[in-house]
Amino acid sequence: MEKPIKKIAVMTSGGDSPGMNAAIRSVVRTCAYLEIECVGIYRGYQGMIEGDFAPMDARSVNNIINKGGTILKSARCLEFKTPEGRKTAYDQLRKAGIEGFVVIGGDGSFRGATIFNKEYGFPVIGIPGTIDNDITGTRYTLGFDTALNTVVEAIDKIRDTASSHNRLFFVEVMGRDVGHIALNAGVGAGAEEILIPEENLGLERLLESLKRSKKSGKSSSIVVVAEGDKTGKNVFELKQYVEEHLPIYDVRVSVLGHMQRGGTPSAFDRVLASRMGVRAVEALLEGKTNLMVGIIDNEIVLTPIEEAIKGHTSIDRELIRVSDIMTV
Amino acid sequence: MEKPIKKIAVMTSGGDSPGMNAAIRSVVRTCAYLEIECVGIYRGYQGMIEGDFAPMDARSVNNIINKGGTILKSARCLEFKTPEGRKTAYDQLRKAGIEGFVVIGGDGSFRGATIFNKEYGFPVIGIPGTIDNDITGTRYTLGFDTALNTVVEAIDKIRDTASSHNRLFFVEVMGRDVGHIALNAGVGAGAEEILIPEENLGLERLLESLKRSKKSGKSSSIVVVAEGDKTGKNVFELKQYVEEHLPIYDVRVSVLGHMQRGGTPSAFDRVLASRMGVRAVEALLEGKTNLMVGIIDNEIVLTPIEEAIKGHTSIDRELIRVSDIMTV
Amino acid sequence: MEKPIKKIAVMTSGGDSPGMNAAIRSVVRTCAYLEIECVGIYRGYQGMIEGDFAPMDARSVNNIINKGGTILKSARCLEFKTPEGRKTAYDQLRKAGIEGFVVIGGDGSFRGATIFNKEYGFPVIGIPGTIDNDITGTRYTLGFDTALNTVVEAIDKIRDTASSHNRLFFVEVMGRDVGHIALNAGVGAGAEEILIPEENLGLERLLESLKRSKKSGKSSSIVVVAEGDKTGKNVFELKQYVEEHLPIYDVRVSVLGHMQRGGTPSAFDRVLASRMGVRAVEALLEGKTNLMVGIIDNEIVLTPIEEAIKGHTSIDRELIRVSDIMTV
Amino acid sequence: MEKPIKKIAVMTSGGDSPGMNAAIRSVVRTCAYLEIECVGIYRGYQGMIEGDFAPMDARSVNNIINKGGTILKSARCLEFKTPEGRKTAYDQLRKAGIEGFVVIGGDGSFRGATIFNKEYGFPVIGIPGTIDNDITGTRYTLGFDTALNTVVEAIDKIRDTASSHNRLFFVEVMGRDVGHIALNAGVGAGAEEILIPEENLGLERLLESLKRSKKSGKSSSIVVVAEGDKTGKNVFELKQYVEEHLPIYDVRVSVLGHMQRGGTPSAFDRVLASRMGVRAVEALLEGKTNLMVGIIDNEIVLTPIEEAIKGHTSIDRELIRVSDIMTV
Repeated sequence: MEKPIKKIAVMTSGGDSPGMNAAIRSVVRTCAYLEIECVGIYRGYQGMIEGDFAPMDARSVNNIINKGGTILKSARCLEFKTPEGRKTAYDQLRKAGIEGFVVIGGDGSFRGATIFNKEYGFPVIGIPGTIDNDITGTRYTLGFDTALNTVVEAIDKIRDTASSHNRLFFVEVMGRDVGHIALNAGVGAGAEEILIPEENLGLERLLESLKRSKKSGKSSSIVVVAEGDKTGKNVFELKQYVEEHLPIYDVRVSVLGHMQRGGTPSAFDRVLASRMGVRAVEALLEGKTNLMVGIIDNEIVLTPIEEAIKGHTSIDRELIRVSDIMTV
Repeated sequence: MEKPIKKIAVMTSGGDSPGMNAAIRSVVRTCAYLEIECVGIYRGYQGMIEGDFAPMDARSVNNIINKGGTILKSARCLEFKTPEGRKTAYDQLRKAGIEGFVVIGGDGSFRGATIFNKEYGFPVIGIPGTIDNDITGTRYTLGFDTALNTVVEAIDKIRDTASSHNRLFFVEVMGRDVGHIALNAGVGAGAEEILIPEENLGLERLLESLKRSKKSGKSSSIVVVAEGDKTGKNVFELKQYVEEHLPIYDVRVSVLGHMQRGGTPSAFDRVLASRMGVRAVEALLEGKTNLMVGIIDNEIVLTPIEEAIKGHTSIDRELIRVSDIMTV
Repeated sequence: MEKPIKKIAVMTSGGDSPGMNAAIRSVVRTCAYLEIECVGIYRGYQGMIEGDFAPMDARSVNNIINKGGTILKSARCLEFKTPEGRKTAYDQLRKAGIEGFVVIGGDGSFRGATIFNKEYGFPVIGIPGTIDNDITGTRYTLGFDTALNTVVEAIDKIRDTASSHNRLFFVEVMGRDVGHIALNAGVGAGAEEILIPEENLGLERLLESLKRSKKSGKSSSIVVVAEGDKTGKNVFELKQYVEEHLPIYDVRVSVLGHMQRGGTPSAFDRVLASRMGVRAVEALLEGKTNLMVGIIDNEIVLTPIEEAIKGHTSIDRELIRVSDIMTV
Repeated sequence: MEKPIKKIAVMTSGGDSPGMNAAIRSVVRTCAYLEIECVGIYRGYQGMIEGDFAPMDARSVNNIINKGGTILKSARCLEFKTPEGRKTAYDQLRKAGIEGFVVIGGDGSFRGATIFNKEYGFPVIGIPGTIDNDITGTRYTLGFDTALNTVVEAIDKIRDTASSHNRLFFVEVMGRDVGHIALNAGVGAGAEEILIPEENLGLERLLESLKRSKKSGKSSSIVVVAEGDKTGKNVFELKQYVEEHLPIYDVRVSVLGHMQRGGTPSAFDRVLASRMGVRAVEALLEGKTNLMVGIIDNEIVLTPIEEAIKGHTSIDRELIRVSDIMTV
């Protein structure tokens, strides 16, 4: 392998997700292993524009594989959406001798990277870090598995109290545009119904389902609701609606919120992050650019970033069916 | 030890808390050990009125010591607040040959028990099962320790994402009248401020504290807020207030909700439950009544239920001071 | 879909693994959904021979999706290896009107199933339940993901104390013939070396690696060792060997043992179990037999059981490379 | 409060325990709050002798409250047991301008501190940090509560597999001289028998108990054994003994090992550490010395170190009785 590149940078951008630190560690250590210089960029594109850089060696990422969040911090950055902002960023990278970068983030972060790549021909490789699992070109995004475990553990606790009181709970989980967390966590937690943005179950069917559930002898019910569900009602409105139409139910609401983004990454996410980081650095050294590292059928693969952000992950119809069957 | 009593009942009442199952198990096994009959009453006083009873032997409580919630279920019961309801309950108990009962619950449940005891001279012993730790006559209520761990683990996750984005979070925890969960979990989670019902910190001081925190170089802040805090504002209003007065902060809100009531009980709560259950049964057999089992300085003690519910637990001033010092 | 089969059975066999209960639940509920009778067989083939059966309806599997172990119990059964044993088992199944069964277990259990199928033409479908992930025809076996999380969490704790004392730990994990747990958990836990049955790293290289690790400034080291590693030494002998040759190290040993088989299943294993159970029942109803349900690239697929047990899963060379790079 | 002392040091010594970092943080922040200089001593007395010091300010202990282990490291130090070693240590402290220190550790560490104090009149305050809970003058040592939770969670997992196979497990837990972990974790995990150093149950009684347990219909059994139990047999010998005398049992062994020392501290240990650290610094500033901070009935108290190490914690007889009753 030739080494056209002598110095690369790594950064995290957009919403954080568990496994980002493990991916940073992997990028940094792969650089150390291949004797390339590595620089950390703080606070995503904002730090790139401000030149908020720090050199990173193998030891600087000790003991972070099991930490949630990102030691490089993350931030939204409006300035990078302007040509001027990107020009400043480019100047900062050049000044620091950086010849390529790895960006760990979601589709917003990738959009910025690909525009930047086109304008300046600057080598970029993306690693999909988001709990939403909404990026094509990879079966799993970094953090999705951990978030599922967090949600399922929280619902296990809620079920304890739900079944002690024969209550119905609406549990809101993250997912503004996609229902992957809701659907998988709902099946994993044994939810009676799952409301996702991709499907309009309809309020009528929800009531039917709840009535059936009650009749079948279930002592409690959990309905998992993605933030962006299509009923047009948020969890508090759903509670009110059900209480009006099914007064037999004592309804409660729980919004899981930001704890879903944090926490010690699962074994799966740590291994995935380690593998993706290696491939990202290698890809840069192979002269590749504008690609995203993904995992398909347990193989690490590369996809053009533009495809990754253009595509649209679709919900797993089979899993919806499994969910229906499980709530018999 | 004479055995004036041949058959006792056990029930859970009011809001559930982790450790209730371990306490049920302890009551049932102590009865088996002492060769007393034991009956489980389902759904608290409601089940008592309805005669919803089931015999329980040592094996019927296998594998529940580590389960959250209560296998005997719990319920609110307005009917038991009426003389007629209590009369029916008394008749049911007599009909079933029950000569005393152990009620696991909070102060509402104890109030019912003590009235019933006075009216019918029926032997009752209480075990304090509530996450709020708001009952006098015991240093710890069953479930408090587990709830603290649940809250602290959730805030650990929230801090991951808070510090990745330099955000301020208001985290609402349970505690309508008392701030024990908020204060202890706040100290345990390293919160920057803790708002509790017992203290009116004042919004001015909150702003001062947050300003100081920012100046001291902290990258993120967590403010723990008990449901019943005295600022007169809920977490969403607090968010708005701070955003108006300290626009430097990117503020988020998280309401932990009912997951605080569930989950596998901690080692502490399981041991406490086991000890309390033994003492409760023994007390009944010793002819005692209208008492609550508590723990003071690691000794199991008995307190008149009336004192337990009349008293008022006060907040630990030293812990408030510790919290202030820790956020230097 | 025609329904040639009216009554099926489900059982667990061999070593237990997390997710078995979720798979039982799925089989039972799918039967209920499709209005087929379902029977649980206790203690695997032993219970089959003894006719230890119980009817199972949708409610009989309430609240088990998150429980480790198997409510149907498991057992080794020498008798089923004899023609007489299998004859008795066949008679029991016929007597009970059972027309097909789903066996959840590892390759030993599948071997029995396929012989039985050949002898009696009895419809059988297998679900791969084992923490070892050593079965071809599926990317993941039920319980593997949970076991990885258990191991990684345990090593995280061990690392706390290792790095406080600058110690070297040999941690033995399960895997007599295959190193999947060791390799994945080793990468996930950031182990300095990983010893697996598939590779003879050699003691010399281990010493070299440890010397390099010390020199690079690492304060502590974890070496993950699969039970069946090829160095010819167990963890206690490894400790002795290293202490003799590298007296600079203060070495400790930890054998994780059977806790790796238990515990609440991860979200991944619960979803996988739910999907596999549905497919298993459907396959029986479609008249299929002697197949194992697997997951390949997130699709549920069927493989002849004979292929599944003949094949040999190979270790992921790329992951060995990732591990090498990570320990730079 | 006058401030005779302007600069203090903090260190951890002996075996590490969860909560040590939270105590370090508390000492450091209390110094910052009171405007005293604070110095961290690395690797206990060894670092004291070598002058391995570093200044610590409030921000240097960010994000450690929830970390196991100790950021100041720990070590055994033979040299400090010699007058020459202590002389060197004293010189180092003087040279650095340190006027008092807080040592977080067990009774070995306290012994060193009190000798040092006598020889040089150097102000020292101890904080009891050990998972064994074997120090008088405090109801709880730092790390005990976390260790109990770790053990109970591990046994919960072991029970899953034990009850799936109707097996008997001997689980060895830490406690060479004292059985507090074994007794409390045994009760918390619902163990059938608990073998501790303080009691010689006798092998006969163990067999009797196991026979009774089998007869009573229990499907599996867990026996918790403290390292230093009095039967004169280790867990492997116990396994052999039981297999010979009770061939009906399929016996397995699990040695939990060093994972018991690590892990994220529980809420209880974090709060305790925070309170103890504040009191330790205040005591030094009040001119006190040679005392240990403890907690008795939820009050922070001071005890002469010599009493703390002379005394002997005794096992809780009531808890042994509770354990007996629970295994009916």
